[in-house]
Amino acid sequence: MAKYVYLFNEGNKEMKNLLGGKGSNLAEMTKIGLPVPQGFTVSTFACTNYYDNNESISDDIINQIFQSMQRLEKITNKKFGDPNKPLLVSVRSGARASMPGMMDTVLNLGINDEVCEGLAKLTNNPRFAYDTYRRFIQMFADVVMGYPKASFERFFDHIKSEKKVKDDSELTADDMKDVVKAFKENYLKIAGKSFPLDPKEQLIDAIKAVFKSWNNERANVYRRINNIPYLWGTAVNVQEMVYGNMGLESGSGVAFTRNPSTGEDEIYGEYIINSQGEDVVAGIRTPQPISKLKKQMPEVFEEFIKIAKTLENHYHDMQDMEFTIENRKLYMLQTRNGKRTARAAIKIAVDLFNEGKITKEEAIMQVNPNQLDALLHPAFSNDSLQNNKEITTGLAASPGAATGKIYFTAEDILNAHQRGEKDLILARLETSPEDIEGMNIANGIITIRGGMTSHAAVVARGMGKCAICGSEELILNENNKTITTKDNQLIKEGDYLSLDGSTGKVYLGLLETTTALLSNDFKTFMSWVDEIRDLEIRVNADLPRDAKVAKEFGAEGIGLCRTEHMFFEESRIFSFRKMILSNNTEDRKKALKEILSYQIKDFEGLFRCMSTYPVIIRYLDPPLHEFLPKEETEINLLAKELKININDLKARITELTELNPMMGHRGCRIAITYPEITIMQTKAIITAALNITKEGKEVHPELMIPLIGDKNELKYLTDIIKKEADELIKNANINLKYLIGTMIEIPRAALLADEIAEYADFFSFGTNDLTQMTYGFSRDDAGKFLTEYYKKQIFEFDPFEIIDKNGVGKLIEIATNKGRKINPNLEIGICGEHGGEPSSIEFCYQIGMNYVSCSPYRVPVAKLASAQAKIKKQ
Amino acid sequence: MAKYVYLFNEGNKEMKNLLGGKGSNLAEMTKIGLPVPQGFTVSTFACTNYYDNNESISDDIINQIFQSMQRLEKITNKKFGDPNKPLLVSVRSGARASMPGMMDTVLNLGINDEVCEGLAKLTNNPRFAYDTYRRFIQMFADVVMGYPKASFERFFDHIKSEKKVKDDSELTADDMKDVVKAFKENYLKIAGKSFPLDPKEQLIDAIKAVFKSWNNERANVYRRINNIPYLWGTAVNVQEMVYGNMGLESGSGVAFTRNPSTGEDEIYGEYIINSQGEDVVAGIRTPQPISKLKKQMPEVFEEFIKIAKTLENHYHDMQDMEFTIENRKLYMLQTRNGKRTARAAIKIAVDLFNEGKITKEEAIMQVNPNQLDALLHPAFSNDSLQNNKEITTGLAASPGAATGKIYFTAEDILNAHQRGEKDLILARLETSPEDIEGMNIANGIITIRGGMTSHAAVVARGMGKCAICGSEELILNENNKTITTKDNQLIKEGDYLSLDGSTGKVYLGLLETTTALLSNDFKTFMSWVDEIRDLEIRVNADLPRDAKVAKEFGAEGIGLCRTEHMFFEESRIFSFRKMILSNNTEDRKKALKEILSYQIKDFEGLFRCMSTYPVIIRYLDPPLHEFLPKEETEINLLAKELKININDLKARITELTELNPMMGHRGCRIAITYPEITIMQTKAIITAALNITKEGKEVHPELMIPLIGDKNELKYLTDIIKKEADELIKNANINLKYLIGTMIEIPRAALLADEIAEYADFFSFGTNDLTQMTYGFSRDDAGKFLTEYYKKQIFEFDPFEIIDKNGVGKLIEIATNKGRKINPNLEIGICGEHGGEPSSIEFCYQIGMNYVSCSPYRVPVAKLASAQAKIKKQ
Repeated sequence: MAKYVYLFNEGNKEMKNLLGGKGSNLAEMTKIGLPVPQGFTVSTFACTNYYDNNESISDDIINQIFQSMQRLEKITNKKFGDPNKPLLVSVRSGARASMPGMMDTVLNLGINDEVCEGLAKLTNNPRFAYDTYRRFIQMFADVVMGYPKASFERFFDHIKSEKKVKDDSELTADDMKDVVKAFKENYLKIAGKSFPLDPKEQLIDAIKAVFKSWNNERANVYRRINNIPYLWGTAVNVQEMVYGNMGLESGSGVAFTRNPSTGEDEIYGEYIINSQGEDVVAGIRTPQPISKLKKQMPEVFEEFIKIAKTLENHYHDMQDMEFTIENRKLYMLQTRNGKRTARAAIKIAVDLFNEGKITKEEAIMQVNPNQLDALLHPAFSNDSLQNNKEITTGLAASPGAATGKIYFTAEDILNAHQRGEKDLILARLETSPEDIEGMNIANGIITIRGGMTSHAAVVARGMGKCAICGSEELILNENNKTITTKDNQLIKEGDYLSLDGSTGKVYLGLLETTTALLSNDFKTFMSWVDEIRDLEIRVNADLPRDAKVAKEFGAEGIGLCRTEHMFFEESRIFSFRKMILSNNTEDRKKALKEILSYQIKDFEGLFRCMSTYPVIIRYLDPPLHEFLPKEETEINLLAKELKININDLKARITELTELNPMMGHRGCRIAITYPEITIMQTKAIITAALNITKEGKEVHPELMIPLIGDKNELKYLTDIIKKEADELIKNANINLKYLIGTMIEIPRAALLADEIAEYADFFSFGTNDLTQMTYGFSRDDAGKFLTEYYKKQIFEFDPFEIIDKNGVGKLIEIATNKGRKINPNLEIGICGEHGGEPSSIEFCYQIGMNYVSCSPYRVPVAKLASAQAKIKKQ
Repeated sequence: MAKYVYLFNEGNKEMKNLLGGKGSNLAEMTKIGLPVPQGFTVSTFACTNYYDNNESISDDIINQIFQSMQRLEKITNKKFGDPNKPLLVSVRSGARASMPGMMDTVLNLGINDEVCEGLAKLTNNPRFAYDTYRRFIQMFADVVMGYPKASFERFFDHIKSEKKVKDDSELTADDMKDVVKAFKENYLKIAGKSFPLDPKEQLIDAIKAVFKSWNNERANVYRRINNIPYLWGTAVNVQEMVYGNMGLESGSGVAFTRNPSTGEDEIYGEYIINSQGEDVVAGIRTPQPISKLKKQMPEVFEEFIKIAKTLENHYHDMQDMEFTIENRKLYMLQTRNGKRTARAAIKIAVDLFNEGKITKEEAIMQVNPNQLDALLHPAFSNDSLQNNKEITTGLAASPGAATGKIYFTAEDILNAHQRGEKDLILARLETSPEDIEGMNIANGIITIRGGMTSHAAVVARGMGKCAICGSEELILNENNKTITTKDNQLIKEGDYLSLDGSTGKVYLGLLETTTALLSNDFKTFMSWVDEIRDLEIRVNADLPRDAKVAKEFGAEGIGLCRTEHMFFEESRIFSFRKMILSNNTEDRKKALKEILSYQIKDFEGLFRCMSTYPVIIRYLDPPLHEFLPKEETEINLLAKELKININDLKARITELTELNPMMGHRGCRIAITYPEITIMQTKAIITAALNITKEGKEVHPELMIPLIGDKNELKYLTDIIKKEADELIKNANINLKYLIGTMIEIPRAALLADEIAEYADFFSFGTNDLTQMTYGFSRDDAGKFLTEYYKKQIFEFDPFEIIDKNGVGKLIEIATNKGRKINPNLEIGICGEHGGEPSSIEFCYQIGMNYVSCSPYRVPVAKLASAQAKIKKQ
């Protein structure tokens, strides 16, 4: 028979998967002799078992629970349900990963009328006993039964106002007795049956409630955001109660071994005299800073400090602890690695290493890669966040904080900019490449539609610019240039808005921002990361400006330059549109010639900046019609400029329109139908590379063809490219090497990667498209149903954010194996948005990729994630 | 060293892959002692070698050619290039599969000034010698060098008119000498060098030309249409010339052992006295029917009839032969299985079996499944085809012949129909589900955009209605209701048009049609097919009417009923639109209730018709907005009917619009976001099944969920469906079994088929979508580049027509294996358009599917293809 329940003295800190974080740490503290009230843990497997059995606890597990209870009675020399020596317990959740506040806790379980009387007699403290009883009734009703908390609070407030007291500590024993009576009556009224007086029934119901809370909506959302699998389940900890509410020499509190906000090495926390743990969290009374304890109970403070140091040294990390003082005796109720700000995380890791307490590897494992982002961007000041309420929360698409006047078109932003207005926010239903210039000028971007990999999100991250996408609660009216909030507030052009791209929250008015400042600790920390990791980190950068930023963050080359982004500047788009609208090859070649000189200049900038590192340049990818004007006025203008009939122009635009542009005439399909574009781009890349070589710099151009699905496509294009490139190199008489590779972003290319590898020097997985095709849904349209999918637990994660290891990952594995089989030296990397997401980076490392490429501001994140992946593998 | 060249006496008919069809049959005829001018075959491998070597023939192969020529000289006792005993040869292509007229032929090679003189002397027939020489110059210039034929013909015509003769047989030896002189001068003028007099040079150039012709455009198009791989290459046959142009006792001709048009058992062919083979083909002189030969040269005729019978008996099939008579001596130049009409194919197969000459299996292998289609549909009469010229050729999307007045909207068709107009043609840019009623009324459909699997094509095939899609040369103006042809002809509403859906040709005016009539031979033949095949053939049918047609063609159940097609009748679409536009679940349920009764009635019809057979019903699949009105007037009307504000309605329609609808909110994604639709459809299916069971009929409903990509989607929906279905069955107290299955049409579903099989009783491959997702291009948009892909030989076939065995097939294989591993009884089939395409059906059979499902009129085709697949495997 499987063992589902463990006493604290049977476990240790390595048993987190089985006992959860809280359970394993309680066991560990027991093991190292700290003062821990004893108890037992119902394992996470019991939770899985509960869900497998249609949400019921098996008899076997119930038996094990009560057997453990008997053993606990022996340890504590108390008896569950016995008024003479009552054993009360707390019942608390504890998953593998810490999920603060997401799941349920019940304190003081095992009390009933008789036990309460016994407790009053035993402690000679009836007020304490009735306080304990009323706490239990309220908590059981709320947490276990799901009855409205407010109806109990109403009674409590009523009695307080009747007795004319402000703080519940002022209530007497009799008052508390009245409260218990009122609560029991209220319970009967709501439940239609009496409050359960059998402690065993109380216990099993409470454990069930904890299991059930694993599946509540806030837990599901938390798991999705924090990438915690549903299958893990939660453990339940049943622990002997100690009482912080026994009088003025008792209390409870929480504390960190170091300052979780700054990382300073100082004990940091608060406590409340004569209280139980939940009072601190609930904010019923204002807690005291922990330093006060030193004066109030110096010997307890002394002991606490000692224990705190012991725990930090034992866990090699900053600890977040809960404690209770019962009549001047200190009990530890919990310890865990403390959550901390990015700034604190870096400082603590570096300090702990310098103090000789942890290794570099441990230091690296202490910092959550996703946190780094916040360090690199400006943020709103704490004050302004506390004083403002968000009007909506969209997707935190690109981090940072931005404030400014809102405008509804790129053109309006441009005009405002030219008028000298400074802080601007661009609001759009969704952005398109036409908006690039406006996005560049704006401080931040907000869109109503689109997800984490929509155009706005991708481009904004590239620019390191704050963006919030998919703010679907807002109604944007393009004609009136207004936004209406769900509370019917009207936001007009020129109004001030503040965007927090790190949380997705949108505020009215101007919030105060703080700027990003990289500390010396950060630099030290990143140098360790660089020492350890062996995955190469490249950047997705389209313009020399982006490449420069990325290099400052330590990018080791460019993994993706999207050449099409070069065409959107006002001076260039005209030539590009002429090219698209050409009716014949000759005209197209003429227009391409105009573009050639721009491209050469851009590529020179990239090569110069990234000298000695590889630079992957992707050939033109998006469908051509994306470049065409959409607004009537713009079409008019273009027709005039091109000297063609407006109706002809419109007809041509309609002709280029596609039903499913994502699956249309784009990528290598354009290169094949218009080889002259391929030739122009090859000429631009190689000419630029030769020019920079002449400057005495080392250049490593890698030419990448998008959207390959068949080896013949690649063969056809590599023939054209090699012919053009080799001739240029030969004529220049310079020794320049270049690679030709392909994106793997079409399922068929992954399935036939062996055939394709015959013509490729490198593979770059375009996981955005690959995810779209593998799942058969477009990232732009999936918003319509993904919300429902999360709610119904069909999906746990957004596959556009976190790589789908089962499905998309399978294709990546097939492609990597097949590709390397044919060409063992094949360089393999990833340039989809997943290249900046830590768990996806770990997958890339495990699968054996050479590099990942991500947006400039994600480079430090990717570096840290790849170092962690290596350490984990070791 | 590999052997690349084979004398005729070294081969036989089994060596087709190596020697090509012509070569292996010449060897076989040699082997069985028929009078064949001797020669040798340069193998297909030499052709592959030629292309692998940058289009040059290796020295090794050249050596082998000349060694074989020496051996041929010994056999013939003539000498190549020797004026005293000149050996002239023909050089002719011959691929594995017959490709009549697609590649090149050169006759009379080896002649030059001296040899010509020698020939004149030897035969004492200078006219013949010069005729032969002028033929060679013209053919060499045209075929080998690619010089314009017309410039030579101009000289020939000039000389004829100078000599005042009409027929070239009237020209004298001296005239011919003049022709030769003029031709040589013309050659010099065009080529800038003299005509090559070295026979060896002539030979190698001619062989190269044949190899090169394998890659000419018409050959590529022919291969694509006939599914012949490029890699096969062509062989080249070098054969001693015999001369049909030696005078009035010579001639050449072609003949079939049976009538290729009707299948009658009678020799059928024609010949021309004093001619060479190409004269018959070129139509320079009118040939004589073969029966005339009986009078002209009875002993030759006698011998020919004997040989014809020998060949037919030897090959077990009707033969298509070429022969030459040289001075009353008969020579066989070629034999091959003759091309024939569908009608003839069936008759010949049945007759040959009845004559005891072939087995049933051989009979079955003789009929090309694709041909059957033509038998089942009306066609244009031969006369009317000869008297009319097509205005364009589109894709032959759905076979049959249709004539009628053209209308440009479904509504206009409806109105015309109500006015009593009878024969109507619907012309659209592309059709959408809104057009269904109009399509149903029309005789035929023509669209400007869209491919073989576009909406118009799929629906038309389902209806057995003629359709031509992708007629991109035509310009359709929706506003003016006109079509403009490439010759600037204007076709207006109400004009007559004729469509040949079997060829894709479009004609102006009313062409005469002949009706389809299934012969007794056809029934006999199909009974043999049913005896032998073991793959089940189901039909894609949405309405009882379609199911009935299919059952008459022998369908064994329904493999796909698209429930959404039931919603487009005018009386229903309103309820459906109400359902879509509901803002809340309650309103949606109300509207669904209205639809329920329609659905029950439809399903009852299907179950009744297909009793004892399985009926797969697919849950709602397309994106909801497809059902919404698009025209302003229709939107107005709907707003009025629904009593909602027009702007609100428009906003809701915009909200439902998707950027990439193919990858949007559709299939099971709708079922999951609106479970009430799933429940309604389940109720309809099960209620209908119960009702028909009560009628005493056997019913096998199979419930199919589309677009599954993750097991959780399927689990969620099967839970809902089972709950609803089981309760209905329990309440009815009837023993009804049903299956729940899923389409496999998303790559991820194929990759994770083992997980999905846990919740599925059957898999049905939706290869239309699977092909789209695997290739990453939409069938609606691919037209923009596929033409260029064929031209550049990047693709050989349209993957939407013929299943891509490498890529898509790989996924099918993975899914089949993984699915059967978990569930060995898993029923597996295909319901994409590929289910009606013979080579794809063969793939399905090989992979181990249980059934294929196709449109009603393809059922006999699928049956034949599956019988052939089984025979081939044995």
